[in-house]
Amino acid sequence: MSDPYAPRPADKFSFGLWTVGNRGRDPFGDFVREPLAPADAVAMLAEVGAWGVNLHDNDLVPIDATPAERDRIVKTFADACRRHKIVVPMATVNLFYDPVFRDGAFTANDPAVRAYAVQKTLRAMDLGAELGATIFVLWGGREGTETDACRRPDEAIKRLREAVNYLCEYSIDRKYGFRFALEAKPNEPRGDIYMATTGAYLGFIATLDHPEIVGVNPEVAHEQMAGLNFLHAVAQAWEAGKLFHIDLNDQVPGRYDQDFRFGSANVKSAFWLVKFLEDVGYEGPRHFDAHAYRTEDACGVKEFARGCMRTYLILRDRAKRWNADAEIQALVADERSAQALAERDELLATVFDRVALARKGLAYERLDQLTMEVLLGVR
Amino acid sequence: MSDPYAPRPADKFSFGLWTVGNRGRDPFGDFVREPLAPADAVAMLAEVGAWGVNLHDNDLVPIDATPAERDRIVKTFADACRRHKIVVPMATVNLFYDPVFRDGAFTANDPAVRAYAVQKTLRAMDLGAELGATIFVLWGGREGTETDACRRPDEAIKRLREAVNYLCEYSIDRKYGFRFALEAKPNEPRGDIYMATTGAYLGFIATLDHPEIVGVNPEVAHEQMAGLNFLHAVAQAWEAGKLFHIDLNDQVPGRYDQDFRFGSANVKSAFWLVKFLEDVGYEGPRHFDAHAYRTEDACGVKEFARGCMRTYLILRDRAKRWNADAEIQALVADERSAQALAERDELLATVFDRVALARKGLAYERLDQLTMEVLLGVR
Amino acid sequence: MSDPYAPRPADKFSFGLWTVGNRGRDPFGDFVREPLAPADAVAMLAEVGAWGVNLHDNDLVPIDATPAERDRIVKTFADACRRHKIVVPMATVNLFYDPVFRDGAFTANDPAVRAYAVQKTLRAMDLGAELGATIFVLWGGREGTETDACRRPDEAIKRLREAVNYLCEYSIDRKYGFRFALEAKPNEPRGDIYMATTGAYLGFIATLDHPEIVGVNPEVAHEQMAGLNFLHAVAQAWEAGKLFHIDLNDQVPGRYDQDFRFGSANVKSAFWLVKFLEDVGYEGPRHFDAHAYRTEDACGVKEFARGCMRTYLILRDRAKRWNADAEIQALVADERSAQALAERDELLATVFDRVALARKGLAYERLDQLTMEVLLGVR
Amino acid sequence: MSDPYAPRPADKFSFGLWTVGNRGRDPFGDFVREPLAPADAVAMLAEVGAWGVNLHDNDLVPIDATPAERDRIVKTFADACRRHKIVVPMATVNLFYDPVFRDGAFTANDPAVRAYAVQKTLRAMDLGAELGATIFVLWGGREGTETDACRRPDEAIKRLREAVNYLCEYSIDRKYGFRFALEAKPNEPRGDIYMATTGAYLGFIATLDHPEIVGVNPEVAHEQMAGLNFLHAVAQAWEAGKLFHIDLNDQVPGRYDQDFRFGSANVKSAFWLVKFLEDVGYEGPRHFDAHAYRTEDACGVKEFARGCMRTYLILRDRAKRWNADAEIQALVADERSAQALAERDELLATVFDRVALARKGLAYERLDQLTMEVLLGVR
Repeated sequence: MSDPYAPRPADKFSFGLWTVGNRGRDPFGDFVREPLAPADAVAMLAEVGAWGVNLHDNDLVPIDATPAERDRIVKTFADACRRHKIVVPMATVNLFYDPVFRDGAFTANDPAVRAYAVQKTLRAMDLGAELGATIFVLWGGREGTETDACRRPDEAIKRLREAVNYLCEYSIDRKYGFRFALEAKPNEPRGDIYMATTGAYLGFIATLDHPEIVGVNPEVAHEQMAGLNFLHAVAQAWEAGKLFHIDLNDQVPGRYDQDFRFGSANVKSAFWLVKFLEDVGYEGPRHFDAHAYRTEDACGVKEFARGCMRTYLILRDRAKRWNADAEIQALVADERSAQALAERDELLATVFDRVALARKGLAYERLDQLTMEVLLGVR
Repeated sequence: MSDPYAPRPADKFSFGLWTVGNRGRDPFGDFVREPLAPADAVAMLAEVGAWGVNLHDNDLVPIDATPAERDRIVKTFADACRRHKIVVPMATVNLFYDPVFRDGAFTANDPAVRAYAVQKTLRAMDLGAELGATIFVLWGGREGTETDACRRPDEAIKRLREAVNYLCEYSIDRKYGFRFALEAKPNEPRGDIYMATTGAYLGFIATLDHPEIVGVNPEVAHEQMAGLNFLHAVAQAWEAGKLFHIDLNDQVPGRYDQDFRFGSANVKSAFWLVKFLEDVGYEGPRHFDAHAYRTEDACGVKEFARGCMRTYLILRDRAKRWNADAEIQALVADERSAQALAERDELLATVFDRVALARKGLAYERLDQLTMEVLLGVR
Repeated sequence: MSDPYAPRPADKFSFGLWTVGNRGRDPFGDFVREPLAPADAVAMLAEVGAWGVNLHDNDLVPIDATPAERDRIVKTFADACRRHKIVVPMATVNLFYDPVFRDGAFTANDPAVRAYAVQKTLRAMDLGAELGATIFVLWGGREGTETDACRRPDEAIKRLREAVNYLCEYSIDRKYGFRFALEAKPNEPRGDIYMATTGAYLGFIATLDHPEIVGVNPEVAHEQMAGLNFLHAVAQAWEAGKLFHIDLNDQVPGRYDQDFRFGSANVKSAFWLVKFLEDVGYEGPRHFDAHAYRTEDACGVKEFARGCMRTYLILRDRAKRWNADAEIQALVADERSAQALAERDELLATVFDRVALARKGLAYERLDQLTMEVLLGVR
Repeated sequence: MSDPYAPRPADKFSFGLWTVGNRGRDPFGDFVREPLAPADAVAMLAEVGAWGVNLHDNDLVPIDATPAERDRIVKTFADACRRHKIVVPMATVNLFYDPVFRDGAFTANDPAVRAYAVQKTLRAMDLGAELGATIFVLWGGREGTETDACRRPDEAIKRLREAVNYLCEYSIDRKYGFRFALEAKPNEPRGDIYMATTGAYLGFIATLDHPEIVGVNPEVAHEQMAGLNFLHAVAQAWEAGKLFHIDLNDQVPGRYDQDFRFGSANVKSAFWLVKFLEDVGYEGPRHFDAHAYRTEDACGVKEFARGCMRTYLILRDRAKRWNADAEIQALVADERSAQALAERDELLATVFDRVALARKGLAYERLDQLTMEVLLGVR
């Protein structure tokens, strides 16, 4: 009898090289794990049942590599992917690690830094395209401030727009066909990061030259850091046709960026999220942007990766049960009214019995308790 | 010698009837102040030097008033405004107090509640137009959930869009000329409110039928509840031409909605905000959506109102000093580079000295310390 | 076959009159439910299988009742408790609702308010003793500030100490035998409440005249509002012999006080909590200090109460499974080392192989994933 | 004319080697500054006007140094301190950086790690004593969990107690005369850290063998991360005679540990803090546990250090003005009532006019506004 929670390629589970390769350094402590060579990461991902691997340019190619080194490294990696049947659905660019970006990349005050950041991104797009990626994520981790004395925030937005427009042109001209997915975060590593929420990016996209190829990459931890309801952000992106990618992990609100194993901090939120993605038919990658605890060795990292996928699949199963539960469905029946508003004269003339409308119990306590019982496996 | 921090009409300071009329009820305690009649509120606002008064429909007209009562009440109020030279720049609608809205208004599951909410808003628009308001604020305080079992969040967005489009048509057809200002809030009174941030509304507006007449009404406390940088939200709205109104107050992050006197919780953030509004030439109302502590009597409410305006004016003065400070201006000089990106071939061919670019100290500690000293009045 | 998750008296589940009687008023909205007479609340609690009912003085006796009214009301209530076999394990005093307490009760600046607060508490102790309560909870909801200008915080602590010492003397002299349980909260309804955490009260208790009869009443929501790990607070109280009572509910961190149904917001934290209480053999009441959503009628309130208890029992069952799971127990085996430190000369002479000690993987990812699978019912 | 805000030795300003020596590494980026040799740090601190320098063992002596290397390094450092007239008021131990502590130090599951942590601390105490420190700080940065599966939290407390008792005995036996100052933090680098707040440590101290030599070291950022009022924590510690040391910096609530320049994030809170320390006559070090932005070079670090002290002195001046302001003093006059409670029979017999007591306006809005105006330098 097969394991109902074993991952399959059709599940489209992907991990970043930086996630399984995370070495456990933090602000107060040193590395706890040895480096994991990209090809070994690919082998490990294949072993645990993942479908794809994603990368920043410098996860694979050192920032100072010569063109020849770069080509050799890329070939080795592409071979490993082929051999292990692992795809590269998404690529991105590291505009945060090197000290040159300490004041931002696309929004830095120094025009040379801005130019360098764009150049580096163009080359990361070349790399992504070469590896077959069709989604290009942009996370502006350093685009922010510790003091708003340093620049006017509207100026930062203009710089950001100029850069994103530039990248879009490049993708179009080179026929890379990328869909850009912008990833918001409220703070850390900067005191405040511009475009703090997925919503902010949805507003920004509407002001771009090529909005049709730009969407968002919401991350669980990034919205939850600010205590926001992640599902609501994802739903807005989806409804606007902008859910181009998603970063799955977990996070306790109001804290440092934790990047915990998917579902391990707030499993009820994770349940609603999985249910939504499955109900609407989201077909993109399920990318886990998380990393193992610092207490783990290589074996623990593998367990961590397995756990992310397994929890997703358990929750998918729970979502099916929820949808199939007769009592639940009876309770939600009248929530589904898509009845449109009457035309104006009729609406203005209607007399509503406000008190009667207010009297009806909505049975949401019962509905939520049934949800908990489905989730906990007692229904 | 005149007081440099005394408010004048040109400052466009406004208060809501619900702010100076707040009676100090909270989840754990009863009213502490007597009701304040709207005309008395207007007189008090005139006395302290305010320019405008704003209102929800039911701040003025009880929800069950007959048309005749309504007309009489409105006339009394309009007379008071005229007599005291107080304008009504903004009107809004109360879609949260009555139990009929316990499950939302425009997004409620019951289509009759949705219809009633729209009808109530149309009438509030009539009222606002009658009083001369040109801005109509929509705060969907009950549009949210305690459990996401109750409805799909994308369905809620569709309902919200239908309603806002409906209202826009009405304003256009009736030639009311309203500019709608949508006000975000992450939570409270609902567990989670849809459209949690100003950014979310900027994204939503782009999907409306009449985006040109819809903007936002960011509120200090609402962004800061989620620990977000309010200035950044305001700047994004401004840069997109969508800053139609603003709600000034104060709030400690990560807490219940406090609505404190402007500048009293985080005066540095308030300073950046005032500086931004003045630097960009924002010409809309400076609306204080705050209320006095529960420890205050009517006299304390007056002091509260005076304090809001006075702190704004002190900060405006500080912003001028900042702009005139030679050392500060020398430090920010190179932040102002608007140098555009080179065209692509040139940019791709440029060789950047990454290490040299990373070496330069940016003197932001000095700049921020100078800012603090301007703020604290020692420069 | 009996329901394994049906409550029994031995489970010691209690509710406050104010919880099932909560009428759904909030800062932005009016009552949504009719008042629930205390005797009816008792009947309802009996019907759903609760064991006890708790009360503030004014949940039962109006603040202005005459002695005769008071006696009649108490008699009716005590009769109802007897008839329905519901005990009154805990009593408390309302020092927050009436405007007289707007600046605090025991810590108010006005000595007459402080005296009145103590007098009111003595009478609430009389009431509690009469009803058989042995635990007296003190929640100082108004003991705090919106501005620290109003008093020196060390002065507030002295006032608080004087009051608690006074109450202890009264309980001792009257032979009431109360164990006082102090309940911390960081904020709301005050901007900041003194004694913000359970830990603060543990420190305070050590400075009292009768520390042996004073412990704490930690509340899930109150610690979680500040994003703190509730289990850790409970464990410290337990280890110090100070866990005299506990308030169970749920809360998303960094928000207004939500008082959600137990386990409905963060079920994993709730799991660790139930497991701890059961593992250590906590024998006090399991008190649910929560209330139903505002969308509910009386029937929904009943479902809410049932859900609190049912989730507790499901989690208790999960805790048993966790303790019985062989793989989990193998993983936690070496966590149980109680090996004491060597005596000093031996310890100073020991040579540790730091690098070897750092190398071992601790398998906490696996352990936590197994926990999730027990919780979700797939093991 | 001398600078009124220039630091003097009597101000007792100290910095940690790790603060001015911070190299700007963060979770997403690499070092931005060169290492600063301890002797150079001392010279720099002398130049900017500091009084003291504090250190972790490994800030000075590498973890793998031989005894001979250690002695040479310590001598060089002590010479530099003498030469520059910089004292070493406090020492501490690094129990968080090395991977051996990835699961905790005193509370780790591996008894060998616990023993090594104690041994390392004893040696750090030797070092501190040799350098003349009289305060020994313990920050258990790794004493915590990412999953509560890993150990029972009450077991962790027992382990912590055993270790602290052990250290106290050592200090007593060696006649080091240390006063231990325990430093709380809610999270980061661990998911949750045990002893999350200063209050928790105050409760813990009461359970130790030698409570008289153990106090606390509250840190602004650590309480504010959890959104707690830092002043209240400090006041409780002071009132209990337990304020043995203090860490000054700044932090926006609900975020990663920011360690900003003192007063730069929430200057009003900083004002109340300085006012309290000065009003009560706190005579310990004013230690700045902060670091410069990552955008700074060595010159910026110097400005950062100067800014910390200068802001403290500006706020001290503002506190004096507040105390000398006649209108403010008139408003706070009746807040100072230390009137004790009447004896019991009298108190029980008193008839209070609750309604009259509730009617009086307390003028806290005015008082707080005056505070803001003193702070902003317009009074």
